[in-house]
Amino acid sequence: MDAKDETVRIKALLADHTRAVRNRDVSAAIEIYADDVLIFDVVGPLAHPKGIASVEERLAQWLSTFADYAVIDFQLVDVAVTADEHLAFSHSFNHVNARLRTGRILDMYWRETLCWRKHHGEWKIMHSHSSVPFDPTTGMASTGLEPPSRP
Amino acid sequence: MDAKDETVRIKALLADHTRAVRNRDVSAAIEIYADDVLIFDVVGPLAHPKGIASVEERLAQWLSTFADYAVIDFQLVDVAVTADEHLAFSHSFNHVNARLRTGRILDMYWRETLCWRKHHGEWKIMHSHSSVPFDPTTGMASTGLEPPSRP
Repeated sequence: MDAKDETVRIKALLADHTRAVRNRDVSAAIEIYADDVLIFDVVGPLAHPKGIASVEERLAQWLSTFADYAVIDFQLVDVAVTADEHLAFSHSFNHVNARLRTGRILDMYWRETLCWRKHHGEWKIMHSHSSVPFDPTTGMASTGLEPPSRP
Repeated sequence: MDAKDETVRIKALLADHTRAVRNRDVSAAIEIYADDVLIFDVVGPLAHPKGIASVEERLAQWLSTFADYAVIDFQLVDVAVTADEHLAFSHSFNHVNARLRTGRILDMYWRETLCWRKHHGEWKIMHSHSSVPFDPTTGMASTGLEPPSRP
């Protein structure tokens, strides 16, 4: 196992992805996903239909909710990666702060878990799980939570 | 890689875990978790404090919400495991159907993603992410969803 190098590579891919999301560059942002990725998303159904088209459509739709002039402040906090030569997993708290078309500011953290496989020498995300927990006393999604380590 | 054997072992561990949950046997149910597991749970904070004590406390609390006489019908649907010799990840739709102390029936699916590492020859869960999505138009957690493949 050369776990340390693989971890560094995956963190670099996540940094590229984060930058692409900030730049609203959907095609660059989806480069880290495998063709047959399975997505468990923050909103919507339990799972999206398998495949990168689901990620592309979902990301484009999400980016379209932000005001045209808005700066999309998007960050991954507390990124942890565990890797060997073939498989890896990572998790983070993802934060967005940006103005929506509605005029409201979206300032929200969610949890993200990513499962990676190396295919022909390139790391790709096979499975992604993003969510917020909910409050069982109200049934409401907890969209105002912060991670323990908020900077 | 001897991926097939590892996949079979992990599925067997999940079957043991599922049986232990049905039997309300907390100590058997938590055997599959690593000592320093990090949990992103369906309800509560973004993350629980790292460590198996969080899992034990959370599972005991959850089981205590069911009526004493209730049969806990707990199943993992569409279990998929990807493994090499050192690391693995799995995902499933988890279903519970059981009567709560309040008299209400809890009949709910959630998504679960598990990240595994083999340590001294034994597979342990390093990270677990369980959730339901929410409906952005209402802010409510979507606790009534079913997976595409519901039996």
